[in-house]
Formats: sequence, C-alpha cells, structure tokens
Amino acid sequence: MQDILKVEKNTDSIVRLILNDEKSGNSLSDEMISLMSSRLEEISNNEDIKVVVIASTGKIFCAGHNLKEMTEARQNNDEGKSYFTNLFQSCSDMMQSIVNCPKPVIAEIDGIATAAGCQLVASCDLAIASDTSSFATPGVNLGLFCSTPMVALSRNVKKKDAMKMLLTGEMIDAEEAKRISLINDYVVSEKLSVEVMNLAKKIASKSMKTVNIGKSAFYKQAELSLSDAYRYTSEVMAKNIMNDDAKEGIASFIEKRDPNWD
Amino acid sequence: MQDILKVEKNTDSIVRLILNDEKSGNSLSDEMISLMSSRLEEISNNEDIKVVVIASTGKIFCAGHNLKEMTEARQNNDEGKSYFTNLFQSCSDMMQSIVNCPKPVIAEIDGIATAAGCQLVASCDLAIASDTSSFATPGVNLGLFCSTPMVALSRNVKKKDAMKMLLTGEMIDAEEAKRISLINDYVVSEKLSVEVMNLAKKIASKSMKTVNIGKSAFYKQAELSLSDAYRYTSEVMAKNIMNDDAKEGIASFIEKRDPNWD
Amino acid sequence: MQDILKVEKNTDSIVRLILNDEKSGNSLSDEMISLMSSRLEEISNNEDIKVVVIASTGKIFCAGHNLKEMTEARQNNDEGKSYFTNLFQSCSDMMQSIVNCPKPVIAEIDGIATAAGCQLVASCDLAIASDTSSFATPGVNLGLFCSTPMVALSRNVKKKDAMKMLLTGEMIDAEEAKRISLINDYVVSEKLSVEVMNLAKKIASKSMKTVNIGKSAFYKQAELSLSDAYRYTSEVMAKNIMNDDAKEGIASFIEKRDPNWD
Repeated sequence: MQDILKVEKNTDSIVRLILNDEKSGNSLSDEMISLMSSRLEEISNNEDIKVVVIASTGKIFCAGHNLKEMTEARQNNDEGKSYFTNLFQSCSDMMQSIVNCPKPVIAEIDGIATAAGCQLVASCDLAIASDTSSFATPGVNLGLFCSTPMVALSRNVKKKDAMKMLLTGEMIDAEEAKRISLINDYVVSEKLSVEVMNLAKKIASKSMKTVNIGKSAFYKQAELSLSDAYRYTSEVMAKNIMNDDAKEGIASFIEKRDPNWD
Repeated sequence: MQDILKVEKNTDSIVRLILNDEKSGNSLSDEMISLMSSRLEEISNNEDIKVVVIASTGKIFCAGHNLKEMTEARQNNDEGKSYFTNLFQSCSDMMQSIVNCPKPVIAEIDGIATAAGCQLVASCDLAIASDTSSFATPGVNLGLFCSTPMVALSRNVKKKDAMKMLLTGEMIDAEEAKRISLINDYVVSEKLSVEVMNLAKKIASKSMKTVNIGKSAFYKQAELSLSDAYRYTSEVMAKNIMNDDAKEGIASFIEKRDPNWD
Repeated sequence: MQDILKVEKNTDSIVRLILNDEKSGNSLSDEMISLMSSRLEEISNNEDIKVVVIASTGKIFCAGHNLKEMTEARQNNDEGKSYFTNLFQSCSDMMQSIVNCPKPVIAEIDGIATAAGCQLVASCDLAIASDTSSFATPGVNLGLFCSTPMVALSRNVKKKDAMKMLLTGEMIDAEEAKRISLINDYVVSEKLSVEVMNLAKKIASKSMKTVNIGKSAFYKQAELSLSDAYRYTSEVMAKNIMNDDAKEGIASFIEKRDPNWD
C-alpha cells in the first residue's frame, strides 16, 4: 500500500512531509488530515527535528478537500451534516497545528495550490514556489465559499488582494503570489528543492530553543494590543537571555567564533 | 431636477450607483449620503441584485465631504456642533453599509478620489481605476485630519503607506495605489467600464447565496483571534455545504458541466 | 565628554535626534535609551516642536542593544535577571513613546539597522533610507530571538516577510525594505538628509494641532473593531472641526488662500 504522506528525514534535522496522493490531487482526505495532524504532533514533540518542509509529488501541490469523500457523505442519514462539521473543524485544527508547531514550517510548492491547498501555503511560516506554480481559492465556483481558507489567506495578504481571490476564484501565478506576499519567493522548478533545503538548513543551523521561543511568541503577540504585546515579549526576551543558548550565542559573537548550540 | 445619484441596472443583475453631482465634485453631501445609504439598504435586501458598482461622472470620482454645507452649518446656534456629529456618524454608517452589504461592491474610479472619496474606494471590496486616477487623504491641509477615512485606509494598506498619505496629504497615482493594494488594478480610461463590468459579471455568474455567505464571513472573521476565526468559519462552511447551491456546485464540478444556480 | 545623542533644532520647528555613539554602533545602551526617552518626553510636551527626525552618525544607523553592557550584567548576583527585565521593558517603553508622541517621527536611515535598531525604524511613523542601507533582525543568530523587535516589525510588514527576516536573521536591502513597506522610500546617500528634511518641513507646514489629533487617533483606532473605530473617529472629527485650525483651514481653502495656523 502506498504512503499518501511520505516522511523523509535527512541528517540535518529537517523533516520533509510529502503529499503523495497524486490521483486525488494530493487532496486533504480524512486520512491525509489525520496523518498530517499525527505527524505534526510527533514533530512538535521531537527534539531532534528542527525544521519541517511540506512538499508534494505530481503536478498538483494540493487541491484542497476531497470532493469524492464529501460527496459520499451526502448518503449518510443526516445528509453528511455531522461528517462535514467534523471535517471542517479537524482540517482547521490541522492548519492551526502548523501555526502552533514550535518548529518553522516551510511550504515547497511545485504546482497548483487551491482551496484548502492554498490555505496550507498560507498557514506555513515561509513558502517558496516554482515559477510555474499557481494559487486560487475557487470554492466560490462550487457554491462552497473558501471560508476557512480565507482565515489563513487574510492573515497573509491585504484585504483587496484576498477579496479578489475569494470572489473571483481565479488563479494567480507565482509572481503575483510573491507580490501580495502569499509566498516569499519563487524559483525555476529544477532549483526548488535545493532552494527550500538551503533555507531549511540555514534555519536548522540556529539554536532551536531560540527559534521555538520566537515562533511561538510571534503568533501570540500578533493578537495582542501594542502595549500588551510589548509587555509579553519583554518577558519572553528576559527569559530567553537567561538560557544557555543566548549565553553561548552572545559570547561566541563577542569572541568572533561560531556558536556551539547544545 | 438632476439625479445626483444615478441608479443603472443591467440585465446581469448588476447595479451601478453613479455619483452624478459634478459641480460639487461628487461630494458626499447630506443628500448624497442619504441616497447612498437608502440605495445600499435596498440593494442589500433585493435578491435580484448580485453585484454593486460605484462609479462617477466627471473628472472627480469623489471629493469627500461637502465643504459648502459644512461651512453653512457654522451659522447654526451651536456653531454646527450637532450637525457635524450627525454628519460624521452618518457618513461612517454609510461606509459600513458597504462593508455590511452582503453583495460585493466594486469601486470604478476614473478621476480624483480624495478624503471621504478615498475612504469610499477603501471601503469597497474591490477597486479598479483608470490609469490617470489619483488618490489622497488631504484633510491635514485643511486643519481637519482624515480621521474617519483612515479607518478604511488603514484596513487596506500598510502602516507606513497609510501614514505617508495621511501626514502629507499628497496625491498618489494609480500605480502607487496598486502597489500598496488600495486598488486591485488600473487600466486605460477607455477600457475602465468594460473591465469593471467584466469583473462584476464574473462574480455575478457565481451562486449569490455563496458569495453572500463568504463576504459576510470575511469581515466577521477578520476581527477574531485565529482560533475563534477557525471555529466560526468551520461552522459557516458546514452550514454552507448543506445548502442547494453547494450540492449543485460540487455535483456539476464532478459531472464536468456548468452549475445551474437557483 | 561626547553627546551620544545629539539634539539639533532648526528654524522650522523640526528636531533632529542624532544617534552619535559610533564606536558602539549607535547601540541602545542604558544611557541611550534613557536619553531617547527623556528627549521624546520633552518633545511631546514642547509646543514649538512639530516634527522629529531620528538620524545617526557613522556607518551603522543603530545596531540594537548594547552587548557589552548586557555581558557585564551577567556578573550580577542574579546573573543579570533583574537588569534584563528592566532593560527590555524600558526599551519597549521608549519604542512606544515614539508611537505615543503626538508629533510625527521620521527615521532617516543611512547604514545598517539591526535588531532593536530595525525596531526603531519600524516604530517611526515614516522612514526614508539611503539606497545602501540594510535591515535585519539577527537575534536568532545570537540565541536571542528578536521578540520585542518583531512587535514593531509585524505591525509594519506582512506575515511571511516578517517571518523570513526573523527566522533567517539575514539582511535585506533598501529596495526590499521598500517593497515590504518597512520604509517609505530610499534615495542616494548624498540626498538623504535633504529628502528627509523636505518631508519634515512639508509636515511641519500643516496645523500641528491637526497632525497631533490625527497621529494619536491613528494608533488608537488601529486596535479597535471596525464599528468601534468609526464611532471613535467620528467623535474625533466632530471635535476637530470645532477647533480654530479647522475653521481657518476650511475657510482658506474656500477663499483660495494659504491658511494661517496659530
């Protein structure tokens, strides 16, 4: 049986989660959501892993929800009501587990990212795409507005850019996705994995304790008022500087040598 | 007597509200605010209307408040105090009725949009301008800071871009307006109406039930924390998928045919 | 003894605060934070001052916290714990005093702005840099994540742009800083001060009462819901229009003459 979510671990403490269900457009089926959630939970608790990459096989990065499963659920006694309620909440939980994972998560997009697939890109901390990739929130075309994807989308891009995607359902290319900051950058497909891995390795070379403190604080402070955000992050920094990695990092900088993280 | 707000309805369920008070710079006079508010309320409750376009006649899209009326109000016993209090609140209510209107509202700007006129552009869901259009929040030059316009402006563009406009009062052109995402795009004046109507028709071809659900949820979720936003939109989607348009939309997609919305 | 913070006042009611501690990279030492806080408080209460510019001498605009002082504090009985707690809070207070200063504050960056130095740029209302300037939040390289700088950074630029800077610690150049709206613009170094002073003079020519009302309201409304923001700013405008400068400003506009502010 084929693994629909491949897990590749290399020596640099970087895990690649590879969406590998080409025939369903790497859709977020029940099994895919469940596997993603499990893997992200394990990764969050695994001290050896420093950075996560979410990549894919095939021409579609991720087509969003699995329409076949959703259509089958219509046959349930309640016409799928409880199935859909669970589905959208469990998918939202999975997206939030990317945000709440203390390790940076990088999206490596080579192909089409639509609906919850576009949300997956928006939910990651960083994203690099191939220059031929494209992005859309086309739910409006199916009578099912991309309401959960827009939570992530609208926290990445500006109002009119988000509204354009949501109301027209049209594709944008990698250049436009960079312009509106849905992705950080794009490169030719042949260089994509190398580029992403270089970025991942760069981050993995930092003190992971520090990166984890920072990522968690980023999303927490973003929801606070300015004064509360400063009160909170001042405490975070005062605590951060007392740990061993800050001592070593500052000492190594002053002594002009490479730091030696635990 | 001339209609200062023309209402044009075409066969595609698209309403064009046309600011038509050229001699006052299409200013948001008491009458204009009142007319706009009434029309927007009617449109919100009219199931035949799917998309709204706000356009204008003359070289000025909208010059903001009506300085003549404001100056006259200075003669009141209270020097205009109660007049101004009502004016700014009723104008703010009108701007919010654009946001709260369940139908998408597109600004079609051909000319100058200043002060509350710039706020009108920012308040719309989408905006396309002619390439010769310009935008400013020049209240600071009159001793009356554009404080209500900045509510809409700062929810469209980034801090330093908003501050530059507000503190200098200077005009920006269509290219800069697109760069900072105050507008979605610009085209030559001759093509503006066609371009806007094509966009409006595209949106009008969708399921309006779906578009209405989505637009309303967009602005509501934007003010929630990430977890609350996901809880709320998960419920919105679970409810959306049970309606007829989602059933038809998904079925038509699977059957590779055009959807047939009610 | 050298002034590490020079204060230059010109005839246009513009104050230039010049970071002048080249040998420490214009670091935010205890003394620098204290001096900046005092000067900003005085400026806030000085009716003759209309606009503030924060500039620097040397090749580094500001390198952030003073690592020498921080390292020395490690020798304290509590290993610096109470020192660091006070340091991060007092630096955060200083940054907030820029935001809370009723007068516009413009950053004039000619060189490197890193960590809390980059935060200083983000905290200003406006920023113009020389084309050779560069920006980074490199705390992650020292084991001390730029958690307080990210409060200001994430309120200026979009999520993925902020995350890229915070997680990699890498420098961005002036062009990229403008693209992500961390700065308003960049010019060649030779023209930087003239450009900044022209901007400052333009703002200083406005009614200062009006500018102060607007700047204060900007940051307050930014933290409110849309309806609360409109309720609040409607009151601000109704109050603003009753003051003398609004009367003079609107009258001068109608009479097509220059306004004569008090």
